[in-house]
Amino acid sequence: MSGVGPAGGEHPFDGAVALKPADTGGVYTGETHPAYANMVGPYGGITAATLLEAVQCHPERLGVPVSLTVNYAGPVADGEFTVSARPSRTNRSTQHWSLELIQDGTVATTATAVYAARRDTWADTETTMPDVPEPEAVPVTPMPDHVEWAKNYEMRFLDGALPALEGAPESPDSTTMLWVRDAPARPLDFPALASLCDVFYPRVFLRRGQAVPAGTISLTTYFHADDAVLADQGTRPVLARARSNRFGRSYFDQSACLWGVGGELLATTHQLVYFKG
Amino acid sequence: MSGVGPAGGEHPFDGAVALKPADTGGVYTGETHPAYANMVGPYGGITAATLLEAVQCHPERLGVPVSLTVNYAGPVADGEFTVSARPSRTNRSTQHWSLELIQDGTVATTATAVYAARRDTWADTETTMPDVPEPEAVPVTPMPDHVEWAKNYEMRFLDGALPALEGAPESPDSTTMLWVRDAPARPLDFPALASLCDVFYPRVFLRRGQAVPAGTISLTTYFHADDAVLADQGTRPVLARARSNRFGRSYFDQSACLWGVGGELLATTHQLVYFKG
Repeated sequence: MSGVGPAGGEHPFDGAVALKPADTGGVYTGETHPAYANMVGPYGGITAATLLEAVQCHPERLGVPVSLTVNYAGPVADGEFTVSARPSRTNRSTQHWSLELIQDGTVATTATAVYAARRDTWADTETTMPDVPEPEAVPVTPMPDHVEWAKNYEMRFLDGALPALEGAPESPDSTTMLWVRDAPARPLDFPALASLCDVFYPRVFLRRGQAVPAGTISLTTYFHADDAVLADQGTRPVLARARSNRFGRSYFDQSACLWGVGGELLATTHQLVYFKG
Repeated sequence: MSGVGPAGGEHPFDGAVALKPADTGGVYTGETHPAYANMVGPYGGITAATLLEAVQCHPERLGVPVSLTVNYAGPVADGEFTVSARPSRTNRSTQHWSLELIQDGTVATTATAVYAARRDTWADTETTMPDVPEPEAVPVTPMPDHVEWAKNYEMRFLDGALPALEGAPESPDSTTMLWVRDAPARPLDFPALASLCDVFYPRVFLRRGQAVPAGTISLTTYFHADDAVLADQGTRPVLARARSNRFGRSYFDQSACLWGVGGELLATTHQLVYFKG
């Protein structure tokens, strides 16, 4: 999908995930986008989205993504990069992909994705959407000005907003819940959903009441939505809730749910995060 | 670790994950083990353990596993297979691995793993171990006799045991909780923990009150334990609890926690499962 911003120009998200075929063998070139810069290299969500985009635009792609794992092996430097997308196995109704993001001959990111032809089956959402105020009733709270990538998301916190940078108390619970969507608004597609799955600031900040060095090392997303569900979602905010199970020995985990219109569970997503202190 | 069963022979788990170097470049040969057979091919947990074992015995391996993702791309046939383990990037304190299990030139399984040197940091377990009866107070319930792999696990169900094969009611909740360990008992190590993470029968069986075709397509495990924690655990049972968030359009997810002695959260693990019906 090629998004168009309110002023009629290209949406920054589309610029950030844009890839050009470098050959016919599933190798693409891309470039980091200043709008999605993070402390060291780009926002992890945009890297995940870019890797998924390589499959989305691959001529051999079948079906829709059901699973994506991204391993952040090293920093991505500002500038050009190469993405290789290889179908490691294609079955009748599933397709497995192996992906790498490479800069100057060095692997910066590895990923695997599973695509599938989905069929109608028995369905139930066991983790239902919490009963919360409508997005319009919740004020927009921007992240601190130096967090470039966060300016691309409209965030309305219901619980666990980013603690003040100084003098914040510790918290006994790592839960953050917010309404969130692209800013400017943009119809949701799979790469945008993959990016949204990394939208939570590090849970250790909330628990400790302070920022410490931290970075995602591995991110897995299970997509429950299909194309029709994403079309229904359009540009409306997603309710996103994240929580950690365990912190210790330099790493913590995080599990999150993203619900859309009508309480539809769009994705569940998990990550392991390095931290210091 | 080379386990020894009570009768002094090799433990079936060690036979099942055993690999022989095929060359010096991280290629190994292994063989499926009849004791871990499942409906189609081997139990997914033993495949995960075998892929992790390839890193464990690789001469370039640094640190301990913190994250493992296994994608079940196609069935593994009874007999020999090849595992290739390649360090895609080695940093000062983390190492990223790309893995494939190949049979007759076809990729059957892909995986990525992250290893790390862990350091003492601030720690907290937010998802604490439920207050349940001691393992000795809970009867051992074997799985049906035709489920070969399950005979290698001593299962004591606290909640959500396998429904009867006929006439079982539907259940509104997908939670299963059990005490579980290798049978015969075997000191816990990382491959055995990786295998235990797949020990839950498909959640859709519990919800629907019947067995339907189902199989894990992608499995991610975050290891919170280090070598010292595993040594403390020894052969004692692990408390394992699994639940799904969403079923629909041919797939459901599952998230699980495995706690050890003293309420230590050993691993959190997630999977996406194909199902029919």
